Amino acid sequence: MTVNILFAAPKEDWAAYEAPLTEALAAAGLDTEIGTEMAPEAVDYIVYAPSSEVQDFTPFTRLKAVLNLWAGVEQVIGNATLTVPLCRMIDEEGLTQGMVEWVTGHVLRHHLGMDKHIVNPDGVWEHEAPPIAADRPVTILGLGALGKACARALRGIGFPVTGWSRSPKQIANIQCLHGDTGLAQALRGAQIVVLLLPETRATENILNAQSLALLHRGAVVINPGRGPLIDDAALLAALDSGQVSHATLDVFRVEPLPSGDPYWAHPRVTVTPHVASETRPGSAARVIAENIRRGEAGMPLIGLVDRLAGY
Amino acid sequence: MTVNILFAAPKEDWAAYEAPLTEALAAAGLDTEIGTEMAPEAVDYIVYAPSSEVQDFTPFTRLKAVLNLWAGVEQVIGNATLTVPLCRMIDEEGLTQGMVEWVTGHVLRHHLGMDKHIVNPDGVWEHEAPPIAADRPVTILGLGALGKACARALRGIGFPVTGWSRSPKQIANIQCLHGDTGLAQALRGAQIVVLLLPETRATENILNAQSLALLHRGAVVINPGRGPLIDDAALLAALDSGQVSHATLDVFRVEPLPSGDPYWAHPRVTVTPHVASETRPGSAARVIAENIRRGEAGMPLIGLVDRLAGY
Repeated sequence: MTVNILFAAPKEDWAAYEAPLTEALAAAGLDTEIGTEMAPEAVDYIVYAPSSEVQDFTPFTRLKAVLNLWAGVEQVIGNATLTVPLCRMIDEEGLTQGMVEWVTGHVLRHHLGMDKHIVNPDGVWEHEAPPIAADRPVTILGLGALGKACARALRGIGFPVTGWSRSPKQIANIQCLHGDTGLAQALRGAQIVVLLLPETRATENILNAQSLALLHRGAVVINPGRGPLIDDAALLAALDSGQVSHATLDVFRVEPLPSGDPYWAHPRVTVTPHVASETRPGSAARVIAENIRRGEAGMPLIGLVDRLAGY
Repeated sequence: MTVNILFAAPKEDWAAYEAPLTEALAAAGLDTEIGTEMAPEAVDYIVYAPSSEVQDFTPFTRLKAVLNLWAGVEQVIGNATLTVPLCRMIDEEGLTQGMVEWVTGHVLRHHLGMDKHIVNPDGVWEHEAPPIAADRPVTILGLGALGKACARALRGIGFPVTGWSRSPKQIANIQCLHGDTGLAQALRGAQIVVLLLPETRATENILNAQSLALLHRGAVVINPGRGPLIDDAALLAALDSGQVSHATLDVFRVEPLPSGDPYWAHPRVTVTPHVASETRPGSAARVIAENIRRGEAGMPLIGLVDRLAGY
């Protein structure tokens, strides 16, 4: 029997996804019908972007699952009309790989003190080599698919990496901590902190005046996770006091970041426009097809969201 | 019998090396005398910086080997008074590790297009994610200790890496090419080129108008090797024509780079003051001690220079 899939996401996404999804669904051996318009009562699966026009799931009476195109589900998880399984995107080849590149690049940028040479006046020849990575402790908050992959990559380059997560985890050669006492231990003395936690009530403002004070003086904060993980006023105060020497921020409470936001003008803040990583149509289409295959076969879905935990 | 070691390098080096060398020599079980002043005819080994005052090796009548503190030997190899074995520094923990960090960092910087966000005007939110590393071919010229380590690190992050060396080499998951035809093949279509060749007559100006034309249009050149590897006029012309979109240069024909040099003012050139990597006293001292132990035991030395090849 034909499986009906509604692609509910902005138009430009359909342009990017139509070909790879069609190919991936065929490669998965599925007999499917996919499109951007479909009678709600006929839909088996929704491939979904939280920015889509579909906000009321009530009319989708035979819906089996919603497959999110994004890693973050905070904009959809609170939707009371959504009662079927919800999957966040776990796109190892695209999303995770892109995040590893961005995080590794920006950690090395700060570790090496590159900005000095990129922006400083010409003619200044000051020979001073940075310490090696072994002497630069890095802490990653969040050890999900993204945090774990970044932890491994940074450890591979030579950084001593401490990871923190809500529940206990074990990763070879990474100091893994958890819970409230673990958080203080993970932040204490860290020279570079990378935020890769999901956005939940428990993680909001996890980087605040108190936790920022635990860092090594002059630490660097890198946030490719979610804007609300940071108490913005506390971070700006820590930047002004010198407790934090630089912040590179890719995500914000409001995006695009409003033009009057103090982050734009701050000399020790780098704003990047939510480019740290994104789902790549080729690899994401294969993950979606695999999840539909699993759904039809009654197998566990990849990236199934835990509603209680919030991600 | 006591082994006499002359430390012939600038004073600040002695300050950094005295303690780690003393410790490493003792740990190697050697009975040594080491200092910055010693009767030449008593000296068994010289720990050497080419910038040292010692330029005539003739008075050192019982000299067994010269152990260079630097990876490059071009400033000493032509010294006709030096007839005993000469070793270049192979400091995996310090020099090689530092180079891996610098090269990986700058390759990722260019790959991710970081400069745009570091230097550009505030308030510009242009969401455009870079391709993933798998779509960014990188070529490394030189597959010695430094080039090989960088090739492996970049491959580990996901870049397709091609390496080129004078003589054939084999490295897992790296396309290794050699010789003149191999050079053209290695450069053709490369989007990022990293120079890690030794400075010899054969490598001088290896990046010239002809070889630069083989690169992918808009390629990036990264030179942490030696200044003379590049034909400077050809590189400036390629930057102006757009054939090369950016050059990050750590080494130059004259260092410090003179204040009037066109590289300083060029908007698409980043000058770094020879900081890509340097010998680290702790680990380098262990390599020197190990070489003296080997020398006394009649074993092959680490980093022995081939006078014919020039490195």
